[in-house]
Amino acid sequence: VSIIAYVNGRYLPHRLASVHVEDRGYQFADGVYEVCEIRQSGLVDEPRHLERLERSLAAVRIAMPMSRQALSVVMREVVRRNRIQHGLVYLQVTRGTARRDHAFPAAGVKPNLVVTARALNPEALAAKAKAGIAILTVGLLSNVLARQAALEAGAAEAWFVDATGYVTEGASTNAWIILPGGRVVTRQVGQDILAGITRDVLITLLGEQNLQLEERPFSVAEAQAALEAFNTSATGTVMPVVAIDGLPIGLGKPGPIATALRAAYHSKAHWHAL
Amino acid sequence: VSIIAYVNGRYLPHRLASVHVEDRGYQFADGVYEVCEIRQSGLVDEPRHLERLERSLAAVRIAMPMSRQALSVVMREVVRRNRIQHGLVYLQVTRGTARRDHAFPAAGVKPNLVVTARALNPEALAAKAKAGIAILTVGLLSNVLARQAALEAGAAEAWFVDATGYVTEGASTNAWIILPGGRVVTRQVGQDILAGITRDVLITLLGEQNLQLEERPFSVAEAQAALEAFNTSATGTVMPVVAIDGLPIGLGKPGPIATALRAAYHSKAHWHAL
Repeated sequence: VSIIAYVNGRYLPHRLASVHVEDRGYQFADGVYEVCEIRQSGLVDEPRHLERLERSLAAVRIAMPMSRQALSVVMREVVRRNRIQHGLVYLQVTRGTARRDHAFPAAGVKPNLVVTARALNPEALAAKAKAGIAILTVGLLSNVLARQAALEAGAAEAWFVDATGYVTEGASTNAWIILPGGRVVTRQVGQDILAGITRDVLITLLGEQNLQLEERPFSVAEAQAALEAFNTSATGTVMPVVAIDGLPIGLGKPGPIATALRAAYHSKAHWHAL
Repeated sequence: VSIIAYVNGRYLPHRLASVHVEDRGYQFADGVYEVCEIRQSGLVDEPRHLERLERSLAAVRIAMPMSRQALSVVMREVVRRNRIQHGLVYLQVTRGTARRDHAFPAAGVKPNLVVTARALNPEALAAKAKAGIAILTVGLLSNVLARQAALEAGAAEAWFVDATGYVTEGASTNAWIILPGGRVVTRQVGQDILAGITRDVLITLLGEQNLQLEERPFSVAEAQAALEAFNTSATGTVMPVVAIDGLPIGLGKPGPIATALRAAYHSKAHWHAL
């Protein structure tokens, strides 16, 4: 748990870190968040995350709460004050605090910015990647319920399946499969698919590994018959998938290509240890 | 603006009413809210709203923060302390405050409950109903962006249109049209349609008014060719629609049936003045 949180200009002890009940994030989920990996106290691909934050905010017409440079200072300060070596830093920007109304508040309402961080155990993550994770596929559910359904079925992540039987993405990850001939398949970014930063970085890595990208939908059956499967996210980087809806993928253990991609991942991410 | 808000057991001055940054409503929209009309200081259809709240919470597996009876006491106390005669009371229940993770927090985390209220001007609402409102139809957008797009186009509400061209519902209302022969059409409740309390009450009123309910999807073109159209919500009860995407409905003013339904509405709602 983070000890110090940044809330609108102040670094606060965790228990005092609060937002107003009329914050539009609380009322309407009217905000944007960004998660960035912390590795050896450095921020992984921070410029990409801040660029995406700026794009996401522009898309929903929320002003940047401060410049990217200033955000970078705040993120680093939250990491420093919490003494985190490995973990995640979260930025949440909402449209601000305003009387409850679905339309935008009057001009002059300032966005709210919250930055928190938490430590992750890198050995535990590495052990998880070594074992690989199981996936449960689900239809229409919220991300929260989907992830919970997966956990209760003994799986670590849920993959969403659209009305025509194709996988869209994971509850908090992008979904990938590997087919014979070094073909690596993930659904093209669109209205149903998060434009993951880890996804982007991985794409730049495929050529170097002599792999071919295919951006297209794939079905659950195609995934279950694939050589390998994996997820990408800032939290787990490249996480091998060893089962989908109870059927083993490949030999039912992390495949060699996903394992190699995981190992190579940080060579491509822009990052340096502090 | 409400002056006193109830937050987890305390009645607080509005400026002090806050929730923790790790409230799951703030982080993940992982909660449920309910809006109830206040009329002459009485709560309109309060039992139905509390039943729906309990059903909604059960569906997402959040515990009731207290009994319905106790919730009723809190709602009335918020109305009383804010001295509201006409307005709205909002209940928001989230899964509680817990470390950021998409899966459910460990057992023992208690839901957070926030109750706020605000006054509405009944004369202004009546004047709006008398003039009727304009609608803008929109495709895939968040409720917040849809409503804002409508306002900027000079319309008062947005109606969502699905991929096949049929209206689903309004950004914060249910959508209805009236066809020749006293046929009143609204889309059946389902995954895309809020089971509105005002919608339910209105259905019970149709028979008395010698009108026939048709629960089915209708297209934007069918709505534009309808005799009348209207929205329902706790905020606006029955609100006549006079234009859809710039085309007048009927004579471009509130129709006689929608106006009669609006007038009759509170005869069916369960409510008494305080």
